[in-house]
Order: sequence, then structure tokens, then C-alpha cells
Amino acid sequence: MKYTRRKFISTLGAGSAFLMLPAIPKFAETFFIDGRKLGVTLVGLGNYATNQLAPALQETSLCYLCGIVTGTPAKAEKWKQQYSIHDKNIYNYENFDEIADNKSIDVVYVVLPNSMHHEFVIRAAKAGKHVFCEKPMGLSVKECEEMIEACRKAGVKLFVGYRLHSDPHHQAAMKFRTEGRSGILYVQSEFGFKIGDPNQWRLKKSLAGGGAMMDLGIYAIQGARYSIGKEPISVTAQEYKTDYKKFTEVDETITWQMEFPDGHISNSYTSYSTPANRLYISTENRWLNLFPAYNYRGIRGSTNSGELNLPEINQQAAQMDAFSKCILDNSESDASGEEGLKDLKVIEAIYKSIASGTKVKV
Amino acid sequence: MKYTRRKFISTLGAGSAFLMLPAIPKFAETFFIDGRKLGVTLVGLGNYATNQLAPALQETSLCYLCGIVTGTPAKAEKWKQQYSIHDKNIYNYENFDEIADNKSIDVVYVVLPNSMHHEFVIRAAKAGKHVFCEKPMGLSVKECEEMIEACRKAGVKLFVGYRLHSDPHHQAAMKFRTEGRSGILYVQSEFGFKIGDPNQWRLKKSLAGGGAMMDLGIYAIQGARYSIGKEPISVTAQEYKTDYKKFTEVDETITWQMEFPDGHISNSYTSYSTPANRLYISTENRWLNLFPAYNYRGIRGSTNSGELNLPEINQQAAQMDAFSKCILDNSESDASGEEGLKDLKVIEAIYKSIASGTKVKV
Repeated sequence: MKYTRRKFISTLGAGSAFLMLPAIPKFAETFFIDGRKLGVTLVGLGNYATNQLAPALQETSLCYLCGIVTGTPAKAEKWKQQYSIHDKNIYNYENFDEIADNKSIDVVYVVLPNSMHHEFVIRAAKAGKHVFCEKPMGLSVKECEEMIEACRKAGVKLFVGYRLHSDPHHQAAMKFRTEGRSGILYVQSEFGFKIGDPNQWRLKKSLAGGGAMMDLGIYAIQGARYSIGKEPISVTAQEYKTDYKKFTEVDETITWQMEFPDGHISNSYTSYSTPANRLYISTENRWLNLFPAYNYRGIRGSTNSGELNLPEINQQAAQMDAFSKCILDNSESDASGEEGLKDLKVIEAIYKSIASGTKVKV
Repeated sequence: MKYTRRKFISTLGAGSAFLMLPAIPKFAETFFIDGRKLGVTLVGLGNYATNQLAPALQETSLCYLCGIVTGTPAKAEKWKQQYSIHDKNIYNYENFDEIADNKSIDVVYVVLPNSMHHEFVIRAAKAGKHVFCEKPMGLSVKECEEMIEACRKAGVKLFVGYRLHSDPHHQAAMKFRTEGRSGILYVQSEFGFKIGDPNQWRLKKSLAGGGAMMDLGIYAIQGARYSIGKEPISVTAQEYKTDYKKFTEVDETITWQMEFPDGHISNSYTSYSTPANRLYISTENRWLNLFPAYNYRGIRGSTNSGELNLPEINQQAAQMDAFSKCILDNSESDASGEEGLKDLKVIEAIYKSIASGTKVKV
């Protein structure tokens, strides 16, 4: 696929700053590829696709909702009406691979249950489409490596849906270590809530791969990794349950500690039983606190110097525009498949530490 | 010792509510024992005694700064002038035991380095004086048990300087579990700061018994214990260092997890390297967040329902009045020697877990 970029970079200047603006500037509407925005197809029309991604795709500047893949004809009809989707851009899971012949679709966004990411990312890559994949990228390091390799072979880009990389509060956390004498010495990150419906796929091991850790804990891992700016060298982890009936297959609650080079550490918590929502980072004498940290909207931040007062943005729109920009620019993203793989390395080490009761090297 | 209480209880009604008021009501001035307030003698005139306790004793209603014990004659002279202390109420460490014959002294407040608590609490008890002892109560479970036994034998009361038991924000944390459907499922508590002078007694094992854990970690243990309202059944703990030169003798940074009956847990952190200062507790669907949590003044709190907006009090004055009231009432305190012992049981388990790399029963 070849793109004609209409002076994208020279017009925007520091492109990343643009993504921090709460409203998308009108002039962005003029960026097209071969005369059009990138066409995104959503694979899996569950809650996140329905309530977050599709509305966000109405606000994006560099991409738009072009197609859908669903196994439910009634859903296809509803979405077709609501978003004026062409019949030729509506697929089901059987004819999905025919997407290879569809020139209006540039990107496949995989929003399926975790266990299906591996298959559909590889099928999308084989169809020659760039891929956005929801987190967790896969169920294992092995799966992630195969997905990266498939995209490399197909010459397409692979991004993981780390929406917070595009949020100004988390961008402030990423920069914080560069603004003083010492790096980040300590990170406390936690994300949890009480999960509802006991029959949902997130509580089934075969579909979710794990429980709170796979869904929410990954945010806390991310928070520590991008705040410290290094990879953990070892982890210790502990598992707990209060509801053995609901959590027969997957983890309910996990605490874990990551040790980074130079003795920098993080202490984290994730749970499907109780609300927890914070990213705290501190240097020798400074700190930054996001509370709540991981919401779609309404993140609040402060530092030792006062309130952060950063704009609230549409994270999903900013994320998809950031990914689209990387495709247009042929540039690298900090939310690439490699990034997704790194989190799975940590998650595997966490599960190993729980099983062995010992410290585990990452 | 026999006290005449002038209608203390009937005048005050719910006495504990009174202690939450930011200003001490004038009528409290009328409470005397045999016509006077309880006389408190400070043993050890370091930073905490000088800058917190002595000023607080100018605001207390039920006790007053009566005497001092110091090994430095110049300090004795300065305090004598500043606080109008009678010569007969000034002792040094050699003649301290003569305090037994001093009827104007009712209470000995031990504010010495940790390793001296055991000796001076027992000497104070043998002199027939009630004892306030700073935290940590002792260096070991054995020391605490001996201190409790000495006070029991002498028929005097023993209190540990847990100032936050008197703070409205922490009283709100203690009550939080009783106000909804479920108990506290999760506590995150952390207290740390970068410690200065590398030559201070707090960095010497023989004087401090331990590092950040003994000094600051104990607040995080307390926070979890009084929020959950139960005793931990087991702990896991991990130790880290960034400065091996400064922390040759004592711990710099520790993370630890406490498991309570019914699967309720806490995850904590303490450090002498970086700022951290929070108590977060959550039930199934509610949370309370104190940030900062452990300051002398300026604690801020919120819950899922909004800001707490509780009054700021003089914690040390409220604490000493609360202890004095227990002496006057002959009632029990939630900051007794038994309470101090419970924290040392946890601390010993934490150090054992670090040494063994395994989960340890408390």
C-alpha cells in the first residue's frame, strides 16, 4: 500500500502536541491518503467497540469507521444504519479474509476476546491490513512474537490499544523523570473494580487467558514501565481470592512488585473485587499522583507543585489518530506490538512468581 | 495514686467527640486531679519532644508539661526558662529513678531513641508512673511483652504515641468499614521520605532497631490494621536498596503485603529514599483516600462521595488528652501497650519474610 501524504509533517510541526488538544482542529480534516482518511474496520462489536471506539471514530481526523466484522446479522444491520457503512465493508468471521481485496479498508481493529487476538491479528496481516489490537495483545509471549512476526512478514504495522499513551496526564507521567535530578525511585500503580455479570467472557480462562491481571493489571504494569522508562529485571507476586465461586477459572486479586535496574521499584495491585485506580510516581524529592488514573474520562492529577490541570481528551480518538499518523508517516509508535510483547513478558513472570512463591526474572 | 474526677464524664457526655474539636473548649480547664492537671515529664528532648510535644502540652486540657529528663545541662536550663519548669522536676538519666518520690509527676513520656524505650518504660513503671511511649514501642515482641508486664505489675497504664488515633481523618478510616455492606477488601498504605543527616541515630541498628520500617512503615501497618479492624494472619515482604552506603545497618525500602481473615489484604511501602504518604481503603463499592495521610498537619481526605472536609487538630495535644482521659477514667485506650505489641509482631514477621523469601504467619 502506498500513501500520498499532503505535507502532513510540515503543516503540523510538532505533531504529538497536536494530539494533546481537547478538540481536533478543523484543518486536520484536510489530511487524506489518496484523497481519503484511513479506513478502519472494527472486528468484534462488543461494549468497547460500541460505546467507545465507534463514537471516537466520529471524532478522528486521520481515520474513520469504514467497516465492521460481526457474527450477528442484526448487529450488522444496526451499525450499517447508524454509521452509514457500505454493504461491501461488512464482513463476518467466515468471509473475513476476503477483506484482502477491499481497497477502502486500511486498518483492522481487533476488539475481540483476548484469546482471539492472535488469530485475527495474523489473519488481518495476511490480508495486508495494518492492525490495531486491543490489550492484552495476546495470551502469551509466544503468541505476541508470532503476531509481530506475521505483521513484519506482511509489511504492515501493528499497534496495541494503549489509549493512555495519548492522554496528557500519562504523557506527563512519562516525562516526569526527565524534569529533575533523580529518576523515578518508586511507582505505586493499582487498578481494580468489582466485576459484574459472572457469566461474561472475562471470567473464562479459555477466552480471557487470565482475570483482573490480563484486563486491568496490565495498566498498572504499563504505568510503572513508562514512568520509570526501563524494563523490570524481576518480579514477585502474590494472589488472593475473596470469591472462590466467581473466580474458579481466573485471578481475582494480585499484588506484585517489579524491580528495575538501579533499585527503582514499583508496587502494584489489581482486582475484580474492589475499586482502585491510581498511578503515583516519585523521585528523590518530587512526586506525581494520578487519581483516578485509568478512566476513559475524568483523570485528575497533581504533583508536589500543585494541581496538573491538563485537558480532558477523547483518548480513543487521539489513540487512533496517533496510530494513523504512524502509518501515514511510516514512523514508529510507543504502543507497538513490541510494547505489547513486553507487558506479556511481565505478566508471564507474575504468574510464574505466584505459582512458585519466589522472585522471578523477567 | 488516687484521682478525684470532677464530674468529668457527666459534663462531657460523649467524650471522644470533644477530642475531635479543633480548639479546646474553655470549660475543660476545670478538670483537675486533686486540684491539678496530670503532670507529664518528657524523657529525651530531641526534635519530636522539642518541636511537637512541648508546644502541644501548652494546648492540652487534661495534662501539662511538668518535668523533663535530659543528659544535657544546657538543654535543662533552656527548657526550665522557656516552660517555667521547677528545679525539682528536672532529672538526668542517672537520677531518673528518684522520680518515684515526686508527687507532681503522674506520667513519663518516653521520647528516646527506639532502643531505650524498653529500659525507660520499665524504670518509669517501677517508679509508679503512667507511661506514654513513642512508637515503635520496642525493638521486638519480647521487649514489648516485658514492658506490658512491668506496667501491669506496677499498676500503671501504658500508651503508645499513635497520634493518628486522635486525628479525625484516621478516625473516619477506622469507622469506614461499618458504614456499608461489605468490610474493607483492600488497603494501600505507604509512608516514606528521603532521610537527611547520614549520621543520625535512626540509621544505626543498635539505636533504631531498623530503618524506614521501624520509623515510618509502622504507620502503614497501623493504617491497614485499624481500617480492616482485624489482625493479619500472614505477611510477605520484599526489601530494596538504592543507597548501600547510607543504609549499611538498617532497611531503606520495604514493600509488604498483609493477608487478613476472609481474604482482605493490604499492600504497603515504606522508604527513607522518596516521598510517599497515603492511606487508601476500599470496600466492594466504596473507597476512602487520605493523601497526604501521615503528616502532623494538613491531612486531606476524600471518599467516593466527595471531599471529607474534616477539621485539622493538634494531634499530639489530642493524643495526650485522650491518654490522660483514660488515666482519669481508668478506661482502656486503643493505643495501649497491647496495640504497640501487635505492630511489633507484624514487623518481626516482615523481617522474617524478607530473610526467608517466603510467606510468614504472624
